Amino acid sequence: MSEPLYDVIAIGNAIVDVMAPCEDADIEKLGLAKGGMTLVDTARAHELYDAMGPAREISGGSAANTLAGLAALGAKCAFIGQVADDQLGEVFAHDIRAGGIAFATPARADEPPTARCLIFVTPDGQRTMNTFLGASQFLPAEALDEGAIAAAQVLYLEGYLWDPEEPRKAMRRAIAAARNAGRKVAFTLSDAFVISRHGDDFRALIADGQIDILFANEHELAALTGNDDFERGLAELSAKVPTVVVTRSEKGAHAVSGGEHAQVPAEPVAKVVDTTGAGDLFAAGFLFGFVRGKPLAECLRLGAVCAAEVISHYGARPEADLKELVAERLGA
Amino acid sequence: MSEPLYDVIAIGNAIVDVMAPCEDADIEKLGLAKGGMTLVDTARAHELYDAMGPAREISGGSAANTLAGLAALGAKCAFIGQVADDQLGEVFAHDIRAGGIAFATPARADEPPTARCLIFVTPDGQRTMNTFLGASQFLPAEALDEGAIAAAQVLYLEGYLWDPEEPRKAMRRAIAAARNAGRKVAFTLSDAFVISRHGDDFRALIADGQIDILFANEHELAALTGNDDFERGLAELSAKVPTVVVTRSEKGAHAVSGGEHAQVPAEPVAKVVDTTGAGDLFAAGFLFGFVRGKPLAECLRLGAVCAAEVISHYGARPEADLKELVAERLGA
Repeated sequence: MSEPLYDVIAIGNAIVDVMAPCEDADIEKLGLAKGGMTLVDTARAHELYDAMGPAREISGGSAANTLAGLAALGAKCAFIGQVADDQLGEVFAHDIRAGGIAFATPARADEPPTARCLIFVTPDGQRTMNTFLGASQFLPAEALDEGAIAAAQVLYLEGYLWDPEEPRKAMRRAIAAARNAGRKVAFTLSDAFVISRHGDDFRALIADGQIDILFANEHELAALTGNDDFERGLAELSAKVPTVVVTRSEKGAHAVSGGEHAQVPAEPVAKVVDTTGAGDLFAAGFLFGFVRGKPLAECLRLGAVCAAEVISHYGARPEADLKELVAERLGA
Repeated sequence: MSEPLYDVIAIGNAIVDVMAPCEDADIEKLGLAKGGMTLVDTARAHELYDAMGPAREISGGSAANTLAGLAALGAKCAFIGQVADDQLGEVFAHDIRAGGIAFATPARADEPPTARCLIFVTPDGQRTMNTFLGASQFLPAEALDEGAIAAAQVLYLEGYLWDPEEPRKAMRRAIAAARNAGRKVAFTLSDAFVISRHGDDFRALIADGQIDILFANEHELAALTGNDDFERGLAELSAKVPTVVVTRSEKGAHAVSGGEHAQVPAEPVAKVVDTTGAGDLFAAGFLFGFVRGKPLAECLRLGAVCAAEVISHYGARPEADLKELVAERLGA
């Protein structure tokens, strides 16, 4: 097995976030599932955008956010995802490349437009996401650069990609390519609702031993295992997956790897402004530690520091200098 | 003269800001005029975007920012400006309407695309703007809703619109429509470089008594009057314009109206994050006081509070609840 060209290669939805603050009453009035991710069609996307206050656009997408964090920490990364040949597609491509991440998936010429996620942020910092998948759902299996996948230490996949049919097929092919090359496959469950739609697929992948590193929050853990008891759910999953990382919001995070347990408290944050990307950036910090061979507890600490940074401001991409921040918090 | 339908109607460039932090060394390397506004063509816009870090998109445009502030304070406003029929045009139109501002200028079907301003923000919070005018420069005189202009207490114009030829013509027609209806015309000089290009036009407008309220910063005042002495420049200008408002960054602001002088110190800001929109929001606060018939000193205070809000975060549109902020700072 040759020296990896990339630390992490990720496949994910290529999404631009459209974000605006709102009141809790708006969430109710618009019939939104607070804190969740809901897929929306064109008509609903227009309806919600019309109801949204003045917004700002910031590149997003779960796995892409994770890579942005990884690259900011100093990892070598590549992204595979589908944008359309339009202005939001240019924005997404610019932002990911400007972060130093290789991105070679050609923009798609036809309709629909680039994916966007309409994110309503309530005063408690909670984000409620409404995703119009657009071009992202047409990521073809041919877009996979299997050479690049084979040349990355870790392949990172987001559960959200299980919703659209074409990328789902591409995912399976990507997993095979990574495993054949002896690389690690990391997977994030993304959202409890995604598990309600695709839990059987996810459980089968896990039972087949296809996943080396699994990221979940405690709700997703419960949804996947059908077990509301945190300890039992974790024990069940860690019997099947070599490394399991579970985030628990203000209760911190817990990891089990090869029988070793580690825990970390949540990193203090002056004010939670917008929780969008908290899990994505936790995964970024953890994976950075993982690819650098750091002890499990340190991987968790890295995750906690990166998550704390991203929830202290609007948007799911890091704003602070993560290298500096990590050096300051963990010691150089 | 009938009761005004709008407090303020503005004509301005319809621009989406593309903003990213950078170092002072980048400003130098890219050959940018720090703190200024430079017009760029397609090639230069691409070159600068390629050199820019991960960015965020927030609606901008000088006069549009001022209206966003005015509307947030509770004024009734309308905007006239040209976007293209594209995604950034939708973003601009959404954001202005979501702020409660009437905006009826139809999107333009042809190339070029909607205007964007590539803004590099240095660690000192200074913004360096590079504007690709795109569709904005094709605002036709026919887009003016002269009925709406006649029905607004104040017509507000930005000096930036003097750069492109078509809007320049439209401006003159708008001024005539407002004056014929007995309304006030407010004008912001925008930028010292704009004055170097169009100072003669501006001076002629002023000499003709076409401008009732003039906004400038001290550099623009010096550029317009050719007088580096602040007091003298102000005296010269206030002899020709009924109300002159001059902002002086951390030195506060000064206004002269009908012979009365008023001054206000700069409002304290915990941290200057991004000065984009400082002058625009100062004008918003001042004009709000003006249309509500407040004393001159209070108009200045309103300007200072709004400017302080906008420089405390990224983007030239207000994020805080300006009504609340003003009530808190000035008393209900």
